[in-house]
Amino acid sequence: MRHIERQIVQLKEKILRVGTLVEEAISKSITALINRDSALAQRVMASDEEIDRMEVEVEEECLKILALYQPVAADLRLVVAALKINNDLERIGDLAKNIAKRVAQLAGEGPIDLPAEIRTMATLAQEMVRQSLDAVVNGDTALARQVREEDDAVDDARQRVRRMVLQGIKVEPERVECLLRVNSVSKHIERIADMATNIAEDVIYMVEGDIVRHRSSDY
Amino acid sequence: MRHIERQIVQLKEKILRVGTLVEEAISKSITALINRDSALAQRVMASDEEIDRMEVEVEEECLKILALYQPVAADLRLVVAALKINNDLERIGDLAKNIAKRVAQLAGEGPIDLPAEIRTMATLAQEMVRQSLDAVVNGDTALARQVREEDDAVDDARQRVRRMVLQGIKVEPERVECLLRVNSVSKHIERIADMATNIAEDVIYMVEGDIVRHRSSDY
Repeated sequence: MRHIERQIVQLKEKILRVGTLVEEAISKSITALINRDSALAQRVMASDEEIDRMEVEVEEECLKILALYQPVAADLRLVVAALKINNDLERIGDLAKNIAKRVAQLAGEGPIDLPAEIRTMATLAQEMVRQSLDAVVNGDTALARQVREEDDAVDDARQRVRRMVLQGIKVEPERVECLLRVNSVSKHIERIADMATNIAEDVIYMVEGDIVRHRSSDY
Repeated sequence: MRHIERQIVQLKEKILRVGTLVEEAISKSITALINRDSALAQRVMASDEEIDRMEVEVEEECLKILALYQPVAADLRLVVAALKINNDLERIGDLAKNIAKRVAQLAGEGPIDLPAEIRTMATLAQEMVRQSLDAVVNGDTALARQVREEDDAVDDARQRVRRMVLQGIKVEPERVECLLRVNSVSKHIERIADMATNIAEDVIYMVEGDIVRHRSSDY
């Protein structure tokens, strides 16, 4: 195996490790939300520091490969895609941390009926992140295209949550703080799904050299 | 001038052109909001396509430089920073488009008192974007550090808007839709300021080779 190939295998492994941490952060932040588990929420917030640290490491790794091996063609596209995917994973970690922050805030506000849609959204978004990472590892553009299509279902669920929150506020305006936190969690999940879509688009670019973002997902 | 230097000058010019478009989009989206000017809002939404197109162009330019000139050290850092700054500018363009979308939605909902804080936030965020771009062009890390500090003022203003919106909903729950759109605009502006902060951090990295993100701005 050429030196650069070994480096690229290691880079992919490192990105996958960040991906695993990020997936765990999403799933734990939602579990913490559902169970009102402040201790778990605290752990999610702490794990974000590890994600940030690894993001910097992956970026330095990418720069090292660019400087030492001066890759071209497919290898170059892979390293550039890795830089962007790394960035998106870090943002997903931040969003999970934001969800975890809401848990602490909701804790002081008595029980809420968390809409079932939130769980649906979270499951969909988590699945999209997992699939987008699988697509990265296997260079699987068919899976990447599937991720892009799944984003619509998350957007639809987000709109349903938005309407429920609005209706709830009109009926019980005194619960506005709590309902707005639910709304805010649903927005964070929507953005996690957007980031998974970005990753999927980077996979298509990495494999096919074609920049598909800003194009309809029917493409 | 070496070939690569000429390419880098052109790359910087191109990024500045995207930056100018993005700055205009912010300022027009806020003007459209204040004046309830749907026609202007439409123009902002249309200009986002141009920004998206240029983002792809800049990215291709960066890849070309990496592949043809295989830059190292400061040149390499500059190209990698350009990739990320380009990405952030495109996201700012999207946020301006989101603000413009709210104008159309607010138009059907009768007059609102747009909090003065929204204008303050928008002015601050726009200034941060302008300064971060000046920092890119001049490699000015002192200015970049100033941008990082200004972000706190935007966050504070955002919290004031949030509280006003909550209070408003409690007093007039029937105006919840409209007040939530105001809230949402203030969040978009906050995120524009965050992106300007990212750009400033990339400038510090580009010039000094030091990754300062995830560190306190006291650094």
